[in-house]
Parts: sequence; C-alpha cells; structure tokens
Amino acid sequence: MLVSKALQRRYATKSFDPSRSLPPETVQQLLDALRWCPSSTNIQPWHFVVAATADGKARIAKGAAGPYSYNEAKILNASHVVLMCSRVAIDDAHLQQVLAAEEQAGRFTDKPDAAAMAHATRVSYHNVHRFDKKDVSHWLEKQIYLNLGNLLLTAGLLDIDAVPLEGINTQVLDAEFDLNARGLTAVVAVALGYRAADDFNAALPKARLAADAIFTLI
Amino acid sequence: MLVSKALQRRYATKSFDPSRSLPPETVQQLLDALRWCPSSTNIQPWHFVVAATADGKARIAKGAAGPYSYNEAKILNASHVVLMCSRVAIDDAHLQQVLAAEEQAGRFTDKPDAAAMAHATRVSYHNVHRFDKKDVSHWLEKQIYLNLGNLLLTAGLLDIDAVPLEGINTQVLDAEFDLNARGLTAVVAVALGYRAADDFNAALPKARLAADAIFTLI
Repeated sequence: MLVSKALQRRYATKSFDPSRSLPPETVQQLLDALRWCPSSTNIQPWHFVVAATADGKARIAKGAAGPYSYNEAKILNASHVVLMCSRVAIDDAHLQQVLAAEEQAGRFTDKPDAAAMAHATRVSYHNVHRFDKKDVSHWLEKQIYLNLGNLLLTAGLLDIDAVPLEGINTQVLDAEFDLNARGLTAVVAVALGYRAADDFNAALPKARLAADAIFTLI
Repeated sequence: MLVSKALQRRYATKSFDPSRSLPPETVQQLLDALRWCPSSTNIQPWHFVVAATADGKARIAKGAAGPYSYNEAKILNASHVVLMCSRVAIDDAHLQQVLAAEEQAGRFTDKPDAAAMAHATRVSYHNVHRFDKKDVSHWLEKQIYLNLGNLLLTAGLLDIDAVPLEGINTQVLDAEFDLNARGLTAVVAVALGYRAADDFNAALPKARLAADAIFTLI
C-alpha cells in the first residue's frame, strides 16, 4: 500500500517552489538511498554531484542552456539537484576499492576464498561487457538508471517531489565538473524539492499502458 | 526510515525457500510497481513475462543452462520470476498506444494542444537516441534498469526477498518466448520470494563505497 501510494503520488515535477528546502534529515535519507542502492556484482560505478546551494545549482544549470533551457528553472528552483555520473570505465583501482569495502564490512571473514570469488565474479561480468557484448559504458550507465529508479521511488516515499532530467548537455557538465579527468561522465540529473502551487502536472492524472499489454503471465 | 530499513534489509538472495509462495496481494503490488514505474517521456518500452507456475519457471530456467547454471536453482525455487524485456525499437504503433493511454486517462482535457506536445516531446527524445546518439536500444534498456531499481526497492519495502539475474542467456529466452517477433528482447530477470533458512548471503554485512568517495557536495 505504501509503495503504490508513493508511486501514485510521485510525478514529473515541472515547477518547484523556490522558497522551500529539504530538511537535512531528508537530504541524508536521499544520500543514503543513492549509496545503498544495489548494482550488478556490487560494482557501484557511480558518483553523485549534489548541489544544495544557489551557486551549485547554477553550475548544474549550465547544462540546461540552449535547447535544454526548458529544464533550467527546474534546476534553479529545486531544493537540491543530483547530477548522476557514471564511471567511463572500470579500472583495477576501482575493483580493488570495492573489494576493500567488502572486506572491511566483514563479508569475507568466514571463508578464506570468498574475497577471491567476489573479485572473480565482478571481473567476469565486467569482461563479458568489455569483450563479448562490447557495451561496457552502457552497462555501467544502466546501473545509474537502476539507482535512478531507486531514487525516484525513495523521493515518493519521503513525500518529496522530483523530476529526472535527461534533457541536459552532458558534455558541458563533464567540462564544468572536470568529470572526464576523474574517469567519470554525466548521465542524468534529478531535481528534488517541493512542487510549486501552480505546477500544472501535479493535477493531471497519471497514465500507463494497460496491464494486459505489458504482462505475460505464465 | 522506512526506505533505509528496506535498503538495509534487501540483499541479493542466493537461495530461496521453495515451499513458500508470495500471497496474491503481494504479487499484485509487484505488478503495480512494474506498471506504474516512471520512464523517460513516459515511453514505457517494456514487457514483463511473469512466471508463477513450475512450468513457467522451468521455461525461464532454460536461460540459466550451461555457463549460467549457478542461477538455475534461484529461478526454480523462487515463488515468482519476472523476465524484464525491452522493446527493440519504438515504432509509431507504440507511440500511438502510449498517447492513447494518456488521452484516455484524461491528461489532455484542459489544453487542446497538449496531446500534440506530449507526442512531439516523446518523438524528439526518441530521435536524439536514434539519430544523434545512435544508442536507442541502450536508452530503452536503461528504462528497464530504472524499473529494476524500482522493483528491487519495492520488494524490500514489502519484506520479500529478491535477486536480479543478469546472468541469463537472453538469446535462449528470446527464442523460448518468441520475443523478437513481438518486437521485444529479454534484458534481465528477477527472482522473488522468501529466502531459505540457510542462505549464506542473508547473514553477511552489506558493503558500499565510502560516502566521501561517491559524493561531491556543492
């Protein structure tokens, strides 16, 4: 019931109330959701630029110039904006960082070969996308979208408003935050906050394809 | 609190209790979560094969033969398995189906040009991926991953166990369910149910990269 309420409540917010900010505990819950989200083989190929200040939001809004200007006010008027970034590639340093986090958490204490197995599984899945499917950047970005789904539902559950923004110039944002040099690239932004009283989209009914068009029950 | 509890509770279930089935109302909540999940421009490029029977699960388990046999028991012992499929391309019939659903829900009653605008936005985003980025199949599959994130958090909130299975032979499953002829392709499966008492992964601590490694606060 909670989930369906959250999914019905949430919508793509078109207009934020610039006078309202998310309370710190809500922001922390959003950051926790980003951090504790699952990913394939726990590879966590992500980084999040989180803008809470006017200056920070103005920097992200540079990615909404020109053809994306319809998204500028959403970025500037939201309470917080998360720029979700993907690693452009997975190097050994990243794999070792993930393994160290798992070791430190105590996932390998019972079995001596558990660390080697976890590492081998991650390398194997990664190599399938590097060498067989040759789609590694997309595979990594798919994990960002998994996190996006996790974040949007989390926002709905916390009774806050959100809109995912694919309509951003990721090249401009890569340059603005020097992301490429850090092995990262911008994928999608999410503006979070509270809807403006006059947001036309809040009142419109949600629409989805019929159940019998999208489910095959066997 | 609810969200963080669900994110901490959930884990990649390695072993399901084959004697336990999800109650019908829980299954309905999962289907509702799949259906009401957001997607870019509401394009909903998905289809879900939902196996609830032994025969249905055996059919999905055909995709876990050979190198993927480590996933076979998860599929067979879970209560339900969802094979998440993506449209391989978006044709005009699909765009019209989405538009008709929005019209029927009443999203266009107030403004005469709203339907044309919604359609134009969808076509425009789709064309960016068709013609500029030339990554349309990945863009569509990214929406499936968004839905995957939505589904995994939903499962956690409903106190049920789940594991996403990228380790499946999607070509075998495309053939098994004649997906290509329907304009679809298998992307990822999710097994859902209740953990076995001896699932080693249930007791292991969850591990993530440190917050300062994944957040840049501005």
